[in-house]
Amino acid sequence: MNSETLEEDERITAEDLRDAWPLLDQEERVVDFGLLDRGEAEDFLLSISGLDLAGLVMALPKEQRRSWVRLLPPDDAADLLQAVPAEDKDALFQLLDDPMKREVTALLAYAEDRAGGLMNPRYARLRPELTVDEAINYLRKQAKERLETIYYVYVIDEQQRLLGVVSFRELFAAKADAKVKDVMHPEVITVGEQDDQEKVSRVFADHDLYAVPVVDAEGRIKGIVTVDDIVDVVEEEATEDIQKLGGMQALEAPYLHVAFFEMLKKRGGWLAVLFLGEMITASAMAQFEDDIAKAVVLALFVPLIISSGGNSGSQATTLVIRAMALGEVRMTDWWRVVRREIFVGLALGLLLGCIGFLRVYVWHWISPIYGEHYLLIGLTVMLSLIGVVITGTVTGSLLPFVLRRFGLDPASASAPFVATIVDVTGLLLYFSVASVVLAGTLL
Amino acid sequence: MNSETLEEDERITAEDLRDAWPLLDQEERVVDFGLLDRGEAEDFLLSISGLDLAGLVMALPKEQRRSWVRLLPPDDAADLLQAVPAEDKDALFQLLDDPMKREVTALLAYAEDRAGGLMNPRYARLRPELTVDEAINYLRKQAKERLETIYYVYVIDEQQRLLGVVSFRELFAAKADAKVKDVMHPEVITVGEQDDQEKVSRVFADHDLYAVPVVDAEGRIKGIVTVDDIVDVVEEEATEDIQKLGGMQALEAPYLHVAFFEMLKKRGGWLAVLFLGEMITASAMAQFEDDIAKAVVLALFVPLIISSGGNSGSQATTLVIRAMALGEVRMTDWWRVVRREIFVGLALGLLLGCIGFLRVYVWHWISPIYGEHYLLIGLTVMLSLIGVVITGTVTGSLLPFVLRRFGLDPASASAPFVATIVDVTGLLLYFSVASVVLAGTLL
Repeated sequence: MNSETLEEDERITAEDLRDAWPLLDQEERVVDFGLLDRGEAEDFLLSISGLDLAGLVMALPKEQRRSWVRLLPPDDAADLLQAVPAEDKDALFQLLDDPMKREVTALLAYAEDRAGGLMNPRYARLRPELTVDEAINYLRKQAKERLETIYYVYVIDEQQRLLGVVSFRELFAAKADAKVKDVMHPEVITVGEQDDQEKVSRVFADHDLYAVPVVDAEGRIKGIVTVDDIVDVVEEEATEDIQKLGGMQALEAPYLHVAFFEMLKKRGGWLAVLFLGEMITASAMAQFEDDIAKAVVLALFVPLIISSGGNSGSQATTLVIRAMALGEVRMTDWWRVVRREIFVGLALGLLLGCIGFLRVYVWHWISPIYGEHYLLIGLTVMLSLIGVVITGTVTGSLLPFVLRRFGLDPASASAPFVATIVDVTGLLLYFSVASVVLAGTLL
Repeated sequence: MNSETLEEDERITAEDLRDAWPLLDQEERVVDFGLLDRGEAEDFLLSISGLDLAGLVMALPKEQRRSWVRLLPPDDAADLLQAVPAEDKDALFQLLDDPMKREVTALLAYAEDRAGGLMNPRYARLRPELTVDEAINYLRKQAKERLETIYYVYVIDEQQRLLGVVSFRELFAAKADAKVKDVMHPEVITVGEQDDQEKVSRVFADHDLYAVPVVDAEGRIKGIVTVDDIVDVVEEEATEDIQKLGGMQALEAPYLHVAFFEMLKKRGGWLAVLFLGEMITASAMAQFEDDIAKAVVLALFVPLIISSGGNSGSQATTLVIRAMALGEVRMTDWWRVVRREIFVGLALGLLLGCIGFLRVYVWHWISPIYGEHYLLIGLTVMLSLIGVVITGTVTGSLLPFVLRRFGLDPASASAPFVATIVDVTGLLLYFSVASVVLAGTLL
């Protein structure tokens, strides 16, 4: 495994550049981009987005920028303007032509992660009274323009209100003198202009659609979102959730491109918060210092017991957070989920408890380090494991609901966060069980 | 929050049923499906897949099955046959008509998660010598058939070898007497029939495509994969990775639909393995039993120290696994990543170490439970934290590379797995540091 090979002689086609892209630094990117011929360079530029696009455009010589920027469809141009540093925004905006300026200004009113921020305002439209033949001819003219797609055509009235949708294919297969309004589907699945991109991607995933129109509160169509953009959204949302579940802030850029101090900030914040929470364990254990002094053997099982709670909590919170993100579990299901996790926790706790008891029992015959009361110690470990695993599954499954109830992101109920809560309660539980079971013998 | 409300009076349209679907049991699903009118029922059936579809079809009365099954395109029919119990496969297969039987048999030769298993064998095709006008007329006839799409048309020779691709829109905008071969794009992005679905989805994400042709080793086109199926694949792959990262086997079905014992199997296996690994901590600590007996105060910081290693390891492994899945980090980057994580670990370890030292120092003035050697204890905690956090980031970042090197799934390097490794090494480190720093005072 060698990090610096294979990168030198590859950069020739757009395809090669796309492959190598995540591994190149800014300077190498600009140099390699310059090696592409114009057609390939255009394809390439249209296939990247956001920060990648902004970095490349701003690194190109000023006199070349206009021709590149005018290539972009309005949604990509708006994304570009949102991604460049504030001081460059205006100069870049001035490079656009006038109709584009209007479209981009309208798009910039939306946050990037809303339906309005994902949509393209250039969609194919028809009036309901046209005949199929007229419609096809009209679309033939539109096919030459820079529309996002002509394959889904939206039928609108004079106030831009959406009346229906018809696929180009249906028009094509219909009788030439039929009216558009008789061929169209009047029931259209739409999204609101302020809908979150996560909601938009759920609509695509549930309905297997290619395009969805974005409408305002009055039912007027503002643009369309197409499925090719949604693949990126789904990946982005999953990446965010995965990183939050790992116990940090989402990075929002590829791992190797995040600057060192940015990385520290994203990770150090949560790590410090978890550390402060975990400090309670030291205080909790201090309460039982005398018990530990009397029975040092108790200390030996502390990592085993608290980690079992953390692991079972990690499973539960991961499952619930993902099920929520996919719409498989809703707020009203909270009791169904938690009740289930109580029983799962009981079963898993019994499993680990029995293994734990056996471990102490068998170990005693190998090396009697647990002393004459080994059976009571085994019992303490077993009962604690059952309690701790149930605590883990219940905390892990309940916390995402609680966070969401208070308007917070359920994905913040990360595995490490749940583990920290369970560590503290687990210790209290373990030493309480010990003080009951071992009373009169070791304690 | 109430679990049983809002479900009674909703089920009227296909849209309502789609919404309620994940929350219904098998019986409710069949009853509600029967309430839809035929058109809506057809739409609904075509929008579900895999286990959902299999469950519904097998629950319908036998005499109705033929008409529903014949609605399905060949890729969905093949998925259905893969999802039903073995004893029902043949009876269901016999319900298909003859051309469909041939197509489905060909598809069943592929694993479900390969490009061949995702594709639809019905794509629009043209010969290169046709004129644009002839091509459009030919497609007009094909538009009425059950093709996956007519919007991307593949140009093939007599041996079915792929020569190029042309979008319907380009044909539509071209001159009527031009030849197809002069309008088409000869460079086509393709996937191999045995390519993994994760690779296929990366092709879509990187190139913003609507459809990709699937070719065999000789360059013959076997079918096309469309982007609407890829949204589901991307979600499915992310769900699998998230669940593995949470320390369990992927469930492969919605949370609320996994049977209780199935759930125990998926979670109990990993939990038991992690438990067995974590048992080493008890043995490791037993080596230091005398030290703990002499300085019980050492035991108090055990959870704090090992959990910090686990948390920093969780961050690192999560980041690396996701970056690998997105193609942002490759095998050859291993040293770049690990080197970076050493420095990140050092910085984060210093942060936590300083907080830890301060904690001991400040606490001493509140309540002197750490005794006269509190400064040495603070130093032990600080040095151990630095070492443990670096161990965490290095283990977490290296393990996915190691697993992949041996052909295993990097996502198995779950947060709990990394934490278990770091717990053991962290304990050894902590007590070793203590035996040096506290030699001659407490130990």
